[in-house]
Amino acid sequence: MNELRVGILGYGVVGRGVVRLLLEHGGLLADRGGLPLRLVRIATRTPGRDRGIPLGDVALTDDLTQVTQGEDIDVVVEVMGGIEPARTSILHALQRGKHVVTANKALIAEHGSELFAQSSEQGRELLFEAAVAGAVPVIKAVRESLASNRLDRVYGILNGTCNYILTEMRERGLPFDAVLAEAQAKGYAEADPTLDVEGIDAAHKLAILAAIAFGAPLSFSKITIEGIRNIAEVDIAWATEMGYRIKLLCIAKRSDGKLDLRVQPTMVPVRSMIAGVEGVFNAVFVHGDYSGPGMFYGRGAGEGPTASAVVADLLDLARAAKAGCAAGRVPPLGTALDRLESLPIRGLDELRGEYYIRLAVLDRPGVLADITHILKRHEISIDAIHQKGRSPSEAVPLVLLTHETSEQRVQAAVRDIAELKTVHSRPQVIRIENIPS
Amino acid sequence: MNELRVGILGYGVVGRGVVRLLLEHGGLLADRGGLPLRLVRIATRTPGRDRGIPLGDVALTDDLTQVTQGEDIDVVVEVMGGIEPARTSILHALQRGKHVVTANKALIAEHGSELFAQSSEQGRELLFEAAVAGAVPVIKAVRESLASNRLDRVYGILNGTCNYILTEMRERGLPFDAVLAEAQAKGYAEADPTLDVEGIDAAHKLAILAAIAFGAPLSFSKITIEGIRNIAEVDIAWATEMGYRIKLLCIAKRSDGKLDLRVQPTMVPVRSMIAGVEGVFNAVFVHGDYSGPGMFYGRGAGEGPTASAVVADLLDLARAAKAGCAAGRVPPLGTALDRLESLPIRGLDELRGEYYIRLAVLDRPGVLADITHILKRHEISIDAIHQKGRSPSEAVPLVLLTHETSEQRVQAAVRDIAELKTVHSRPQVIRIENIPS
Repeated sequence: MNELRVGILGYGVVGRGVVRLLLEHGGLLADRGGLPLRLVRIATRTPGRDRGIPLGDVALTDDLTQVTQGEDIDVVVEVMGGIEPARTSILHALQRGKHVVTANKALIAEHGSELFAQSSEQGRELLFEAAVAGAVPVIKAVRESLASNRLDRVYGILNGTCNYILTEMRERGLPFDAVLAEAQAKGYAEADPTLDVEGIDAAHKLAILAAIAFGAPLSFSKITIEGIRNIAEVDIAWATEMGYRIKLLCIAKRSDGKLDLRVQPTMVPVRSMIAGVEGVFNAVFVHGDYSGPGMFYGRGAGEGPTASAVVADLLDLARAAKAGCAAGRVPPLGTALDRLESLPIRGLDELRGEYYIRLAVLDRPGVLADITHILKRHEISIDAIHQKGRSPSEAVPLVLLTHETSEQRVQAAVRDIAELKTVHSRPQVIRIENIPS
Repeated sequence: MNELRVGILGYGVVGRGVVRLLLEHGGLLADRGGLPLRLVRIATRTPGRDRGIPLGDVALTDDLTQVTQGEDIDVVVEVMGGIEPARTSILHALQRGKHVVTANKALIAEHGSELFAQSSEQGRELLFEAAVAGAVPVIKAVRESLASNRLDRVYGILNGTCNYILTEMRERGLPFDAVLAEAQAKGYAEADPTLDVEGIDAAHKLAILAAIAFGAPLSFSKITIEGIRNIAEVDIAWATEMGYRIKLLCIAKRSDGKLDLRVQPTMVPVRSMIAGVEGVFNAVFVHGDYSGPGMFYGRGAGEGPTASAVVADLLDLARAAKAGCAAGRVPPLGTALDRLESLPIRGLDELRGEYYIRLAVLDRPGVLADITHILKRHEISIDAIHQKGRSPSEAVPLVLLTHETSEQRVQAAVRDIAELKTVHSRPQVIRIENIPS
């Protein structure tokens, strides 16, 4: 092989980035990859639309099969997003003997096992660095560089939209809805923000990362997911006052042969490295038994960062072709597919941790006694109580921080507390995760 | 090949970590590497010393050639450190057709070109992830994951001893000598701390990183190196007050076809991610034209972290053997050896930047006028002036922050200022680097 011939499915933001990068850095990529990466063809629903990029003799088509089945194509880059027709196109491309590079986290998280089996059967590579954290090379880092370790936990900030919203809420003291509307106006959030703000996009990425970190099959459907819609300005202000930041944290932990997989708003110590990850940035914290703690940080989305990761995968393919490597040098989840270990997922009822509980209470004698009595009955011990403001008529905020306890006890206690006549509105519960620096 | 047979040169702290890891994680490494990594033999000057690790049928010897020339060894791990006999042993091992994994930054920085040529000629791999930043997989990240980018700058905190000393000086308000003595007592600093506190160890790592980042030959001898001995508590206190941290920063920048390579105490904005890197931790910040800014963080030294990186390289070799890859899949400096581009190194006289200048001045009328007159003569414009305390008899600190100017002008102005009768002791000059988050 004296060149790697590339076809692209999708010519949106990411596709444009990949095209620009391939055309701009041709010489540099050939020097580094050992072979030129030649862009042959792009399939898009709108081949006639002018993207302002001079394509030379690169062909445009609206027929996906011209890429997935083209005899003149060695690698198919899938950057359409969504499940179909991406899934079918990738299966077709693999069947036709092509390698595939994709940035599609939903597809890998939900249909990865099927696609990996197909790529393995065909002896072709299926690479997906861009599916998690954009330009942050965390797939390669966990699958290769930290593969000498048994990992016990992975924390991620994997959705830039949520992190941007939480950062803006804190810095400017604004409510969720106002910041979301602004983010939509600026193009940082989708018109339908559900996938982002409900935590689903983050959970797709966590599913992939956790499978690689623990050598376990993909388990997207078993992740506990909670989004950021219910985070109030007052929670963020309390967090700041107590030395925490609230992040939509992806958590994957292994202990006692079980996995804990969650995406939820979480308080992290302001001094931890991950607390410093602000705005649209992504980061992944990993703890290994030999490596100790480590963190990877950078831009998790957008044209340039995603293209950076996609083309890094193409370079890997070029280098492998040049060196005559068989496909599957690095298994898709780091561990050989037939050696993946299915670990039970811990239910919320088995979780333990420290909790922040915010109540709106009437400032009357005996309120605190009623509440602490309920906590005592549920055997929850209190680390700190904060109350701000006094009002004879209105509810005032009361914040409790617990010592380590079980989630089950906290939920039961909060149900009982919510029934007190002196407690107004739904209590807010946020988990605290004491991440080391 | 159905196993990868490993021999180790050196059984000190790092050697012990590698041995422990290989023995403890045998099953996991085989599942991930596709082949078992079998430890065959360890060469050490003290084979009789009990390290408390049950070695089974692993042989100990004091003869290096039993490892470098052993017919039953596929890979030699060099963790002795120092130039000789490491250099000769590695050359012998390559000549005998063995792959080599080393953690030796001084050797790679100073003799890498010779070793790379030999490994290329012999068709064997020479891997060195552990040589830079320990468990932080920055060699692989830059050489593979970010290889799709043209990088324009790399900043590193690459010496844990210096970062620990600077962190302790700041947090506890102690002078350099006191913290160094304490670090030596705790084993965080060597009895002879020269390589660390003079910046030489950091410069070895920067030489390697810069060569990979810019596809340029190794240029250790051309790095401007300044250590941390002259940093006073008062500089650290001023930095804090003005919103900066002082770090021993490794800097590699490319602009206008020239490289800027420096290791020096530098003020970085307290809000930048790299400012949050405290104690013995290491970090590398990289900016690429597509990836944008990114950072890699973790433990840069010690038994476990270094072993993590060494064994990750062994896993790479196992995977490559299993997949039948020819050596040199990834060139040692990321770019094919015959395509490296020798870039001129910018002299200190060509540097531009913002500067912190601290003077000890007599608090007399006209002092400020004299100083600002000199600065004006050298065309240096001032961003801020701070003075603290008043004393009719003793010198008081006067701190100036400049706007962007040339290093040459600053040095010339400081020489003139030092000659004023009202200025006592040597002026302190520290560069400010406005690293984005």
